[in-house]
Amino acid sequence: MLNFSYQNPTRIVFGKDQLAQLTKLIPPGSKVLLTYGGGSIKHNGVYQQVVNALEGFDWQEFSGIEPNPSFETLMRAADLVRREKIDFLLPVGGGSVIDGTKFIAAAAMFAGDAWDILAKGAKISAAIPLGCVLTLPATGTESNGNSVVTRYETQQKLAFSSALVYPQFAILDPTVTFSLPPKQAANGVVDAFVHVMEQYMTYPVNAPVQDRFAEGLLHTLIEEGPKVLNQPDNYDVRANVMWAATMALNGLIGQGVPQDWATHMIGHEITALFGLDHAQTLAIVLPSLLQQQRGPKRDKLLQYGRRVWQLQHQDEERLIDDAINHTRAFFEQMGVPTRLADYGIKADAVDKLVAALQANGMVKLGEHGDINLDVSRQILQRAV
Amino acid sequence: MLNFSYQNPTRIVFGKDQLAQLTKLIPPGSKVLLTYGGGSIKHNGVYQQVVNALEGFDWQEFSGIEPNPSFETLMRAADLVRREKIDFLLPVGGGSVIDGTKFIAAAAMFAGDAWDILAKGAKISAAIPLGCVLTLPATGTESNGNSVVTRYETQQKLAFSSALVYPQFAILDPTVTFSLPPKQAANGVVDAFVHVMEQYMTYPVNAPVQDRFAEGLLHTLIEEGPKVLNQPDNYDVRANVMWAATMALNGLIGQGVPQDWATHMIGHEITALFGLDHAQTLAIVLPSLLQQQRGPKRDKLLQYGRRVWQLQHQDEERLIDDAINHTRAFFEQMGVPTRLADYGIKADAVDKLVAALQANGMVKLGEHGDINLDVSRQILQRAV
Repeated sequence: MLNFSYQNPTRIVFGKDQLAQLTKLIPPGSKVLLTYGGGSIKHNGVYQQVVNALEGFDWQEFSGIEPNPSFETLMRAADLVRREKIDFLLPVGGGSVIDGTKFIAAAAMFAGDAWDILAKGAKISAAIPLGCVLTLPATGTESNGNSVVTRYETQQKLAFSSALVYPQFAILDPTVTFSLPPKQAANGVVDAFVHVMEQYMTYPVNAPVQDRFAEGLLHTLIEEGPKVLNQPDNYDVRANVMWAATMALNGLIGQGVPQDWATHMIGHEITALFGLDHAQTLAIVLPSLLQQQRGPKRDKLLQYGRRVWQLQHQDEERLIDDAINHTRAFFEQMGVPTRLADYGIKADAVDKLVAALQANGMVKLGEHGDINLDVSRQILQRAV
Repeated sequence: MLNFSYQNPTRIVFGKDQLAQLTKLIPPGSKVLLTYGGGSIKHNGVYQQVVNALEGFDWQEFSGIEPNPSFETLMRAADLVRREKIDFLLPVGGGSVIDGTKFIAAAAMFAGDAWDILAKGAKISAAIPLGCVLTLPATGTESNGNSVVTRYETQQKLAFSSALVYPQFAILDPTVTFSLPPKQAANGVVDAFVHVMEQYMTYPVNAPVQDRFAEGLLHTLIEEGPKVLNQPDNYDVRANVMWAATMALNGLIGQGVPQDWATHMIGHEITALFGLDHAQTLAIVLPSLLQQQRGPKRDKLLQYGRRVWQLQHQDEERLIDDAINHTRAFFEQMGVPTRLADYGIKADAVDKLVAALQANGMVKLGEHGDINLDVSRQILQRAV
C-alpha cells in the first residue's frame, strides 16, 4: 500500500424525505444562492421542497447551469455572488450543477483571472461554502473536491480540485431520481463504474481493502444498474446505485493505490470537440484502453475477470479478452454505445482528438505516464 | 437500505515516516497534553519521534492510562487538563489510550459529575480537541466518536459516543506495530473482525455496497490476520490489517443497515468481572451468539458462509454450522481461545454475568432487541 492522507468532511444525509433537513444543515443567517440547471427540478417537486426548506433564509437563485457547465455562465454567477454578498451556495442538481457551483465558489473569492484556476492550476486560498442536493447519481462530486468546467469558445474541458470546495453536506434522496430520463440514469451508472475502474484497474500494490471495496462497487453497479432501466421506481435499486456512485468517487477507494484517469482525460476531449455526454465518452474509451494497455494492466485485468466477472478460463489471454468484452457489453446493456461510429463520429476525428490532447498537455497519461500521444491515438483508433 | 446521516471528519495520515507530520497537524500555538499508557512507546521509538515533532509546542504528558482505561485515572487527567488550561490532547497508543483520552476531553469540559456521561448518557456540549497516533490497530477509535471506560470500584464497563470526540487526525504508521506483542496484535485482528460482524451479521435490507464492503474487510482480516503472527515485520501485512481495522469501525459500513452489538455488550461484562482482554471476550461470545441466533440471522449467515468462507453445501443447516465453525477456528488460529473454560472461568460465572447484564440494563440486546436475559444466559452457557 502507498502512503496517503485522506479526509472527507462532507456530511451525507441519505434517504427518503431528507430534503427538509436543509433547514438545519445550512448555517443559520446565511445569505444563500440556490443554483440549478435547466429546470427539471421544477417538474419533479424538488424545487418546491427546497424552497419550502429555505423559508426564513435570505435567498435568491441562479438557473441555467448547462450540462458540461460553461465557464462563461459560471462567471456570471460568480459576479452575482460577489455583488450580492452571497455567503452560502446551494447547488441542486447533478454533477454539472454541483461541479459548476464549486467553480463559482472558488471564482467568487479569487483575486486574479479565474480562468487560471482551470488553465494554469492556480491555487485557491478561499471559497464560498456550499452544500448540495444531488438529483443524479454519477460523478461523486457531492462528496469530493473536484470540478470540471468547459470553455466553449476555446473547446476546452478542464478540471480543478481543492479541499475548499468539498460540499459541507450532501442530501441524497433516492426518490428524487425516480423521474430521471433513462439515458441520464444509465449515463450515471457508466460514469460511476468507470470512476471505480480508474482507481482499481492499474497494477497491484497489495492493498486488499481498496481492491475488495472497488470490486464491491463494481458488483453492485453490474447487478443494480440494469434494474434502473427496468424498474425505475424501485427505491432500493435507486438507493444502491446512488450510494455506489458516491462511494465510487469520494476518494476512499483510491487512497494508497495508483490511479489511471487516462480514460477521463481522453474522454474530455471527445466531449469538448463533439459534445458527447461525459459517460458516453467513457464507454467509448475504456474498453479500447483496456485492450491497448492489457500488458501493463495484466495482473489487475486477471483479478478483475476472476473476481468481478467470475471468469474461470485457464487461458489467461482469453480471460482478459472476456473481461474486456463483458465490460463493453455492460455499457451496451445500459444503452450506452461504445464506438465513436455509434455517435456518427468518423475515423478522421482521431487526428483532431490527438491534437486536442496535445494542446492541453495530455501527453503522459495513465498510472505509469506511458500513454503518450501515440498510445492515445491507438486507443482512439481501436474505438472507431 | 435504511436512512442515515454520516460524517467522519478525521484526517487519516497513513504510512511510513508519517509521525513527523504531527508538527503540521496540531493547531499552531496549542497547549498540548500527550497521553499514553504503560510506556511501551518509550521502547519502540515512538515516544521520541513524538517528542521531536512536538518541539516548539508548549506540551506536557500524562502516562499510566491502563488497558480498559479506568474512570479514576482519567478523572485525574481531566483535572490536570483544567488546571493547566490544556487545549489539545494527543493520545499516543492503542484503543484504551485513545478511548480514555476521549473521555478526558469530554470530562474536562463537563459541568456536572462526569460519571453521568457514562452512567446516565448525559449529553456533552463541548470537548477538548484531540488528534491521535495509533500504535495498535483494533478498535477503530482513531476515527470514530466512541469511547469505553471502566469503573473498577463498581466493576462497570460503560460506553459513550459523541461527534465532539472524533480525533481531528489519526496518524497510522504500520511500522509502529512491528514491535507489538503477538497477543495484542492477534487481539486487534479479532476485535476488528467482530466489529465488522456486529454491523453485517443481522438481516438483509438490500444494501449491497455495505455488505460487500463488510465482506471485503472480513476477507482481508482472514487472509492477512494470521500473517501478522508469522511475518511480524511484513509492512504490507501490517498496513492492510491497520487499514482494515480502521475501516471496520469508522462508521461507514454500518450506515443504512441494522446493527447488533450484543456480543460487545455481553463481552464487556466478562471484562468487567474477570478482567479478560476485550478481544478475548468477543471471541468467546460471538460463535455462541451466532449459534443461538441462527434463526433470526439465517439469511445473513448463509450469505456469510457462501461469500466469505466460500462454502457451497446444499444443506443449509450444515452450511451455517460450518460458517460458525470457521469463525471459531479463525479466532483459535489467531491464538485467541473461544471458551470461558480456556480462561479458567467456570460455569457458575454465567449467573454472575447475567446479573451484571441486568444491573446495567442490558436486557434487550441485538438488532431485534430480542436478546433478553434468558437468551444471554443461553449464549453464555453455550460458551462455557
